[in-house]
Amino acid sequence: MNGGKVTPMSGFLEFLPEERIVEQHFLDVIRETFELHGFASIETRAVETVERLLGKGGDVDKEIYGVTRLGRGGEETGPSAGGREPELGLHFDLTVPFARYVLENAGKLAFPFKRYQIQKVWRGERPQEGRYREFTQCDIDVVDVGQLAAHFEAEMPLVVADAFRRLPIGDFVIQVNNRKIPEGFYRGIGLDDVPGTLRIVDKLDKIGPEAVARLLVDAGATEAQARKCLQLAEIRTADLGFVDAVRELGVADATLDEGLAALAAVIEAGLTHAPGVLVADLRIARGLDYYTGTVYETQLVGFESWGSFCSGGRYDSLASDGRTTYPGVGISIGLSRLLGLLVGKGLVRASRCTPAAVLVAVGAEETRPRSAAVAAALRARGIPCDLAPSAAKFGKQIRYAERRGIPFVWFVGAGAEGGDEVKDIRSGLQVAADAATWLCPEADLRPAMLLGV
Amino acid sequence: MNGGKVTPMSGFLEFLPEERIVEQHFLDVIRETFELHGFASIETRAVETVERLLGKGGDVDKEIYGVTRLGRGGEETGPSAGGREPELGLHFDLTVPFARYVLENAGKLAFPFKRYQIQKVWRGERPQEGRYREFTQCDIDVVDVGQLAAHFEAEMPLVVADAFRRLPIGDFVIQVNNRKIPEGFYRGIGLDDVPGTLRIVDKLDKIGPEAVARLLVDAGATEAQARKCLQLAEIRTADLGFVDAVRELGVADATLDEGLAALAAVIEAGLTHAPGVLVADLRIARGLDYYTGTVYETQLVGFESWGSFCSGGRYDSLASDGRTTYPGVGISIGLSRLLGLLVGKGLVRASRCTPAAVLVAVGAEETRPRSAAVAAALRARGIPCDLAPSAAKFGKQIRYAERRGIPFVWFVGAGAEGGDEVKDIRSGLQVAADAATWLCPEADLRPAMLLGV
Repeated sequence: MNGGKVTPMSGFLEFLPEERIVEQHFLDVIRETFELHGFASIETRAVETVERLLGKGGDVDKEIYGVTRLGRGGEETGPSAGGREPELGLHFDLTVPFARYVLENAGKLAFPFKRYQIQKVWRGERPQEGRYREFTQCDIDVVDVGQLAAHFEAEMPLVVADAFRRLPIGDFVIQVNNRKIPEGFYRGIGLDDVPGTLRIVDKLDKIGPEAVARLLVDAGATEAQARKCLQLAEIRTADLGFVDAVRELGVADATLDEGLAALAAVIEAGLTHAPGVLVADLRIARGLDYYTGTVYETQLVGFESWGSFCSGGRYDSLASDGRTTYPGVGISIGLSRLLGLLVGKGLVRASRCTPAAVLVAVGAEETRPRSAAVAAALRARGIPCDLAPSAAKFGKQIRYAERRGIPFVWFVGAGAEGGDEVKDIRSGLQVAADAATWLCPEADLRPAMLLGV
Repeated sequence: MNGGKVTPMSGFLEFLPEERIVEQHFLDVIRETFELHGFASIETRAVETVERLLGKGGDVDKEIYGVTRLGRGGEETGPSAGGREPELGLHFDLTVPFARYVLENAGKLAFPFKRYQIQKVWRGERPQEGRYREFTQCDIDVVDVGQLAAHFEAEMPLVVADAFRRLPIGDFVIQVNNRKIPEGFYRGIGLDDVPGTLRIVDKLDKIGPEAVARLLVDAGATEAQARKCLQLAEIRTADLGFVDAVRELGVADATLDEGLAALAAVIEAGLTHAPGVLVADLRIARGLDYYTGTVYETQLVGFESWGSFCSGGRYDSLASDGRTTYPGVGISIGLSRLLGLLVGKGLVRASRCTPAAVLVAVGAEETRPRSAAVAAALRARGIPCDLAPSAAKFGKQIRYAERRGIPFVWFVGAGAEGGDEVKDIRSGLQVAADAATWLCPEADLRPAMLLGV
């Protein structure tokens, strides 16, 4: 329990109480929105087998944290006993554990299964702005058996739009694409190396159109093909205009048509239920090996350089046990990145650093039970309150409240005929009050979110 | 993402969606109670340095899980680079991280600091009934600088009593003792090896009074001293009667007096604010090296063999940086153990496996947008709902709701003059309804907790 100087650990974000209140507000709004949309919560254990975390490719770029029992050389974890490589690791996302959970519990789940999952994940990455070694993800996914209805792809971003519109984050844009559009388009113009082409076009933001065109030509495309790829990537419309814009490029392909129709359905649902939020952006790709249909990214207006705060897409095989395949569509809010920006830059803060709306003052230690009874009466009516830690002078008790941002101080027996009084320490107004009937102003019941700077 | 057969991992509890809803209910009630009492939330990172986790004693009995970056031999974590022993470990409780957090942020916190912390912790123990390798703890602590007011020791169990009374767990008893009572008593009868005596008396439940008396005599006590120790340990009263019962044993000691007065204050507060819940039980010791004043344990009536679900106590030095000492008092609810019993034995279950109170049926895929608009209208009014995944026959859509325990199915345009109707599928009653005004019965808005067996 004891120690000398303690310094923060790089990459591990910890909040002060007033910052945590902002985080709790975000978590509450996100959870409530997910539940209003009928998603059921699950939590999975923090550890998976390393084998599962690495996946088929054994991709160590995932920067996994291995877990072993201290001083035991992993004795219980099987083949590597006594060895150096752990058999268990901390999950680095919530998709791999969810896929495992679906396989493990398939017989007990009702499909299509709509779940949300809000948990911490860990990655041994080099910490930098917006990237952490421990961070919180808020995921929703719909998974079904064999086939997954296309309408779910339109519903996912609307859930996120509902959540984001209720959060103090300013304007945001959810960019949507469908992987079938570039895939069909590239094939339609005679570029058969779809992953290779995608990989080059994906660099557009970083290296610019000239360099992308050069790389495409180096990879075997003609100048005309390269120009077409760039023209496709530049299409971005908040309405169905993207369909005509693609048609004008004069490329015919069945997969392209499928992709356009699917993306049109998503954008149309957005126009109905979340006008101004969804944008068809044909540059969005989201990695290469994973998504097979709609893909999403989300940016905060004015903070585009921070990258996407909410991403996801459709995958034909979220999980498979060899016999049954489970297609899914999911989207994930990067809460720590969002709060790292908003809290870190002072853009959002809480009005107080405690849930207490009221401090019940204590006149003397002998009358503490009477003050405690007032606090109990207020709590029974849902009003969070704190009891003064000592029977100090009232000025000091008021400063206790001030320092924490508690708006009201309650004085037991201070009023006429021994009744109580409550003071709004912001205005200084002190009025008669009864703990059995006093109404705490709705806006003061919970800490408020204040917008900075 | 793919794999064959998946089996559960021993010691890591994962819930099905309907079980998770029970867990969420418990978490919500516990959090709300903590906040009503003015405790502020913090979360700490999952990892601490192994040095801090081991503490001064380097006690490997704590069964710590070490954490290292996979395939890197811990390159970034300092002296042990390339070695086998990790420098970081997963926290095994919330007290060690809280003490570190207090030291790290002392300059930014307002003292006395009342915090709650609800997080998972990990221990590499051999799994058994009621013991897990990953489990959730719900802690409250008050910590102050230099001195901590005694009244906090009376307040902690009342917070837990408030939470437990609102949970579907049946009757419970919070057993309270004060470490100064046995300490003063043993010294008062001439037994100066207090830790040694405590250690023996602590075996009372396991080995019985005869064996305890024998061990005490073996350790140097007289028969009379041993008998007195047993008499003290057998005192258990729900009121202040324990004071006289101790006095009747005729032992005079200043520390004993202090302990009796302190325990009387706790029991008195309990008699006022939570009658029938607190019991003075002079057998409770809670380990040996840690607590210095009041100690708590909590048992569910009828499930005493499961041990304590909520324990804690007062420590004179929660944390110290060498110059400043931070005394504290805390209590911790073992949520996973509680749910392992209640959910595992089927004593509590949820009325449904989804937050959705309503399933909005879809008549045909072409009219899905109209059903989606109804769902949006209900959600805007705080009613969680799900949209039918396909325009199957209504019988099949009703079975979708039935399987998940969703109480209402909404039929768009099924009523007179094209109005909507809503069916309570439990009673079969179907009535006209408008999404802008329909009132979901309060009891159906959230999943209900049903008591088994």
